[in-house]
Amino acid sequence: MRIIFLGTSAGRPTKARNVTSIALKLPDPANGFWLIDCGEGTQHRLLSSKLKLNRLERILITHLHGDHIYGLPGLLTSRSYFDGAGPLQIYGPIGIRAYLEGVFEHSGVHLEYELDFIEIDSTGIIAQDDGFIVEAAPLEHRMPSYGYRITELPQPGHLDLTKLAELKVPPGPLYGRLKRGEDVKLAGGVIIRSSDVVGPSVPGRIVTILGDTKPCGNAVILAQGADLLVHEATFGAGMEEKAEAYGHSTVLQAAEIAAKAGVRQLLLTHFSSRFDDEAVEKLTADAQTIFPDTVAARDYLEIHVPRMGSNASSV
Amino acid sequence: MRIIFLGTSAGRPTKARNVTSIALKLPDPANGFWLIDCGEGTQHRLLSSKLKLNRLERILITHLHGDHIYGLPGLLTSRSYFDGAGPLQIYGPIGIRAYLEGVFEHSGVHLEYELDFIEIDSTGIIAQDDGFIVEAAPLEHRMPSYGYRITELPQPGHLDLTKLAELKVPPGPLYGRLKRGEDVKLAGGVIIRSSDVVGPSVPGRIVTILGDTKPCGNAVILAQGADLLVHEATFGAGMEEKAEAYGHSTVLQAAEIAAKAGVRQLLLTHFSSRFDDEAVEKLTADAQTIFPDTVAARDYLEIHVPRMGSNASSV
Repeated sequence: MRIIFLGTSAGRPTKARNVTSIALKLPDPANGFWLIDCGEGTQHRLLSSKLKLNRLERILITHLHGDHIYGLPGLLTSRSYFDGAGPLQIYGPIGIRAYLEGVFEHSGVHLEYELDFIEIDSTGIIAQDDGFIVEAAPLEHRMPSYGYRITELPQPGHLDLTKLAELKVPPGPLYGRLKRGEDVKLAGGVIIRSSDVVGPSVPGRIVTILGDTKPCGNAVILAQGADLLVHEATFGAGMEEKAEAYGHSTVLQAAEIAAKAGVRQLLLTHFSSRFDDEAVEKLTADAQTIFPDTVAARDYLEIHVPRMGSNASSV
Repeated sequence: MRIIFLGTSAGRPTKARNVTSIALKLPDPANGFWLIDCGEGTQHRLLSSKLKLNRLERILITHLHGDHIYGLPGLLTSRSYFDGAGPLQIYGPIGIRAYLEGVFEHSGVHLEYELDFIEIDSTGIIAQDDGFIVEAAPLEHRMPSYGYRITELPQPGHLDLTKLAELKVPPGPLYGRLKRGEDVKLAGGVIIRSSDVVGPSVPGRIVTILGDTKPCGNAVILAQGADLLVHEATFGAGMEEKAEAYGHSTVLQAAEIAAKAGVRQLLLTHFSSRFDDEAVEKLTADAQTIFPDTVAARDYLEIHVPRMGSNASSV
């Protein structure tokens, strides 16, 4: 499970940073990916990544400001060039469907695949499948803006191979049934309990990605205990008034949310185009005084989100 | 007067070529520029050019397919970041206004400058000012698509400085009046005729830029005697059936239009994304068998359009 930042600038692109988009690369074997937001030029960024449009399965839009959605029409159209591109789901605030349908009508677009819209207008679970639960909640911005909490379902615990050998369970299909939680009877009549040979289930990872927002309670709720929080940091310390006026956050406010929510790592993004790389370094250092495990996103930055279990001993 | 290609790919971007946009850099001292079409990512291309958005004065849209217009909302929004950006005119087929107003409404955009729409639906002069006349005519594509003939007004002839000295005309404001075509009376009462001291007027340059089209009569009419013709060349020789089906042209068809219209130079663009640089070289060589002065556009290619007068002796 990886997060790849495709655009990290607020409002307009700079030479180094494109406007907002984030890819969520799912764990193998699913091998697909999702996008969170899709600013203009997102499809261009994908051309220089390993992500292929036909593997895109779902798009979550946080809000309808242009720097988060103007890349959708072109990206969706280009996806039609891929043979066998499957259905695609678009989640977003009310209006996302009318926006896209309007653009497609004027520009004569007929997609070669099925597009499903799921418009959201409240708090709660918006998607649930074999692998993930997605929850949404409104944030505080100049227009309806949502945050998404993506929770990976727990994985079955590891099989205790030593114990299985001791108990003389023959390797094969029985292993799978035990791992899935079934108790099984051996040929000799002995019953093996799943709970005796399978370790505790491995908790899923939690990634919270917020749209543009002022500091707000729902940000903390969505990020509670997350492995990774992606928070906007449009402005620097001391620019709180400006942030308030435009419905944005400063780096310090983002760090405070991360601290309150007790996340493992904070990724800052959506930097005002006034900040160059050196300024962003300074902003990040400021945030680290409040929340040490803070990293500034840059375009193409790829963050691996480890399972809690896999490094729990080091925490 | 220069043409700068900002995107030269058909339908979707490739790593090397963006979707369509062309900048027309006006001669000094106007120092502004126009855009013809504005595919997604045009504002990103401008970031790596010398052209600044606040100097953009006019946009001509050939047709409403996405690869020609999906860059408009972002580019127009980013232009608002420039203090003192003046009014902007957008010319294009009927629907261009509804497209943009729809996008802006859904994404909450309020531009900081005046946007004037001029929707066109027939043949004729669509703009005329101090420096240029712009004529439009419909082409043949899967949706209404226009070509634009941009004619620079003739420039006053050069002053004959030797003759002015012989006639004892004192340098100063009289020179300007004579150059503008006025006859003037010297202090001693002698009348100097403008036509005696000013050479023949210098013809303006003609640049014809066509939207997506099959070969058609209006393409030849718009390009008649042009200094530069920009013609789409989506397909290669032998792909005439495909070109016909999609309302496009092959390189050979583009070269035939250039030959029929007697233009000075043909610039090919809008290459299908299936063609890499090597393939485009081959396509260009094919076109040159019909029209030798053919050049393949590539992104950032800058073409100076000389005045006829300045190299008439070499023609």
